[in-house]
Amino acid sequence: MNTPQAPEPGTTPGAHPLDMALRLIPEHDGSARGVAPAAYWNMVGPYGGITVAQMLQAVLQHPERLGDPLSITVNFAGPVEAGDVRIEAVPVRTNRSTQHWTVSMGQRDAQGAFVVSTTATVITAVRRDTFSVDDLPRPAMPDPMRCERFDTRGAMEWLQRYDMRVVQGAIPKTWDDSGHESLSQLWVRDDPPRPLDFVALSALCDVFYPRVWLRRARRVPAGTVGMTIYFHADAAQLARQGDKHLLAQASAQAFRNGFFDQTAQLWDSEGVLLATSHQIVYYKE
Amino acid sequence: MNTPQAPEPGTTPGAHPLDMALRLIPEHDGSARGVAPAAYWNMVGPYGGITVAQMLQAVLQHPERLGDPLSITVNFAGPVEAGDVRIEAVPVRTNRSTQHWTVSMGQRDAQGAFVVSTTATVITAVRRDTFSVDDLPRPAMPDPMRCERFDTRGAMEWLQRYDMRVVQGAIPKTWDDSGHESLSQLWVRDDPPRPLDFVALSALCDVFYPRVWLRRARRVPAGTVGMTIYFHADAAQLARQGDKHLLAQASAQAFRNGFFDQTAQLWDSEGVLLATSHQIVYYKE
Repeated sequence: MNTPQAPEPGTTPGAHPLDMALRLIPEHDGSARGVAPAAYWNMVGPYGGITVAQMLQAVLQHPERLGDPLSITVNFAGPVEAGDVRIEAVPVRTNRSTQHWTVSMGQRDAQGAFVVSTTATVITAVRRDTFSVDDLPRPAMPDPMRCERFDTRGAMEWLQRYDMRVVQGAIPKTWDDSGHESLSQLWVRDDPPRPLDFVALSALCDVFYPRVWLRRARRVPAGTVGMTIYFHADAAQLARQGDKHLLAQASAQAFRNGFFDQTAQLWDSEGVLLATSHQIVYYKE
Repeated sequence: MNTPQAPEPGTTPGAHPLDMALRLIPEHDGSARGVAPAAYWNMVGPYGGITVAQMLQAVLQHPERLGDPLSITVNFAGPVEAGDVRIEAVPVRTNRSTQHWTVSMGQRDAQGAFVVSTTATVITAVRRDTFSVDDLPRPAMPDPMRCERFDTRGAMEWLQRYDMRVVQGAIPKTWDDSGHESLSQLWVRDDPPRPLDFVALSALCDVFYPRVWLRRARRVPAGTVGMTIYFHADAAQLARQGDKHLLAQASAQAFRNGFFDQTAQLWDSEGVLLATSHQIVYYKE
């Protein structure tokens, strides 16, 4: 259960950008040091999904961890700047088969004060074989290789890290207020391809552009404030997926007074639901 | 924005059971003291929804609070026993229009050690008028007064605190493994009726019985491990609802190896989506 999920710090020239981003070096005080990764840069800070993956990684490589990830909730409390980040993961309570964590990420400001940018809670669990069934079937979709790849030339750096093939709900080509629904469906995997694991899956849960852009066909400032992921797969199931494309789907339920929610599902190539995710997202206007 | 939401401690004989349960007395160390409420007792501890409401209440009555609740995530790390509870709410970061909180609840054990039972993160926000639309319409339903009230005679104490009128997905009458879906829809309000506010709404988000019972028509041990609520309404909108019935809907997306998720929506009597909620729930077998 406690197989290390991180490469050793300082190894592997040519390692995958995701593994480079997830290099966290344990510090003497129990925290871990990493870097806000340039390879996953968004407009004014790192891609939210990579921050989620870093928070999860701090738990996964913690020596007291019990079991695999069951859920993670990350709140984006403030901006993450370029440079070092420090992540503290604390096992608040360990039960027989579940473990409850609080996690925080922060950085030193110009005056040397430590400022928290991100908070999280994580639940890890030892899972057992039980009755299992998906209640939400995967939508029927053409094969990923028959779908056109989203052209990311000139786009933000983090978008270069993903191979996306949108089937429905592509980003609007014209911003003419003509939108009428908020559903997107796409095939997606890391680029270069990389075997799926919990950290990769957690980062993939944030690949959707803001639902309010689609619903309105209007581009307004927007940013995720909080995000939760429930993991339905165990490590063996993720390993079976390998580096094949996942089917990812997202839609909103309500847009109201500056915030909308996003509900998302990620299925593997066989149609098994691997993760469900939720966000609350700020938008202006 | 900072209108106190709690009655003064020690007031009002005959106060509503919810308000009694939410009496939290500020302590000198900044924490608040309350009681695991007998009026909302479940099988082996308080109803999860009342614990969520208490965690939220600790934020709402904190002197540094900014704005109204936007989201709350509660992780049920261990059992809550009868007796006093202590809740600590910490404003980790305050921005111009959002505020990020960490919250924990705990109790003294028999040896006098403080043991954390429950962790949470809360986001509060100041909201502004913007483009607003519900993307998930309320299902068409008969008027609540035309629906039969769920008979709670002999049932657990917390069920006496709610008036539930199930339209679809009632608790199975026979446990014969005949289940095939996980959707429930019901009208629900506090009993006695009480004007809706954020704490009442947060407690209402947990009224659903375990989806695995419905999906399987089999009663297995089950309990919520983590829960998130996104609030889409502001205080004025909740006040307009008064004490009328809400329409509450819940279903599962996946059951897998000991845990299932639950997705829920609560609409007001006019069909406006007030809150969306998600749970990850343990089940045995």
